[in-house]
Amino acid sequence: MKESLGAKTLAFPTPAWIVGTYDEDGKPNVMTAAWGGICCSKPPCVYVSLRQATYTYGNIVRRKAYTVSIASEANVKETDYFGVVSGRDVDKLSAAGLTPVKSDLVDAPYVKEFPLVLECRLIRMLGVGLHTLFVGEIMDVKVDPSILDEKHVPDIEKLRPIIYSPGKQVYHGVGKYLGQAFSMGKKLAG
Amino acid sequence: MKESLGAKTLAFPTPAWIVGTYDEDGKPNVMTAAWGGICCSKPPCVYVSLRQATYTYGNIVRRKAYTVSIASEANVKETDYFGVVSGRDVDKLSAAGLTPVKSDLVDAPYVKEFPLVLECRLIRMLGVGLHTLFVGEIMDVKVDPSILDEKHVPDIEKLRPIIYSPGKQVYHGVGKYLGQAFSMGKKLAG
Repeated sequence: MKESLGAKTLAFPTPAWIVGTYDEDGKPNVMTAAWGGICCSKPPCVYVSLRQATYTYGNIVRRKAYTVSIASEANVKETDYFGVVSGRDVDKLSAAGLTPVKSDLVDAPYVKEFPLVLECRLIRMLGVGLHTLFVGEIMDVKVDPSILDEKHVPDIEKLRPIIYSPGKQVYHGVGKYLGQAFSMGKKLAG
Repeated sequence: MKESLGAKTLAFPTPAWIVGTYDEDGKPNVMTAAWGGICCSKPPCVYVSLRQATYTYGNIVRRKAYTVSIASEANVKETDYFGVVSGRDVDKLSAAGLTPVKSDLVDAPYVKEFPLVLECRLIRMLGVGLHTLFVGEIMDVKVDPSILDEKHVPDIEKLRPIIYSPGKQVYHGVGKYLGQAFSMGKKLAG
């Protein structure tokens, strides 16, 4: 028998992505977002959902661009830090000892030290209650060669991204390999 | 030096969620979706992005409702199966030996055997290229008591949700605890 927990944002897994933008003065800013995901294959698009109160919100609206930098679990402290202070008050990247790199495709910076980066051009905004979805077309994916497998595809076991749990508000790493998609279920198809 | 992989849907982690709907005849259907996430805190909302070609697409449009059932890694084969066949051709839940339960809040079924369920009322649709985002307000979260911690909050280490990797198209489980959010980064804030 299932138990009711009420209307809450309890879904798993969620990411802990770093959204990179420039402010009005051209200062690079980053913030952590767990409300994000892929939302279209063609063209390839992601979204991040942000509150209007965030510094990043205005930055994206003005520049029509953002990046998503995905940290490895080694940088979980920095990832958390980017979610607890505001870019209005601090230069977060400097404070964390990390390096902004200007994207050559969109008007936004990414985090040099993080192994996978999506460069996004804002194509849609959708307000839903407290949050606004910023849908970005992925113009390019840039990676550190060290996270690629022998077929030149990102390997999650090398990337080691951070998984965020709403509710308990904790971070976990990636665990054991479970199987190949679009394959292991075929046995059930008979 | 980062390497360019082109414009692709390579983001990590993504979920492997089971979207539950009723078809025109009231037959329960489920499909697997990796393009999904939380998109608003207030009201609590999720989205799933689906191609118009899916059987689920028409079901959601007609019934204005869907559920998200989150499987444990023990059900990874069933999760994959729900993504490789169409509800037009098969009763997937029967074929997988799983049980549909009618939500008491929205006009959609969920998977009884899966430990966490979101019951969603469709509140927005946003077309983006090949996919449409179905934004659902979470009316309730229902869980098996076995996945709750001592504070009555879902524990990802007990839920053991599946993580999907685009690109390599593989599934992984959840790994080791990395730390407490909104806390471990504060040291960097000085």
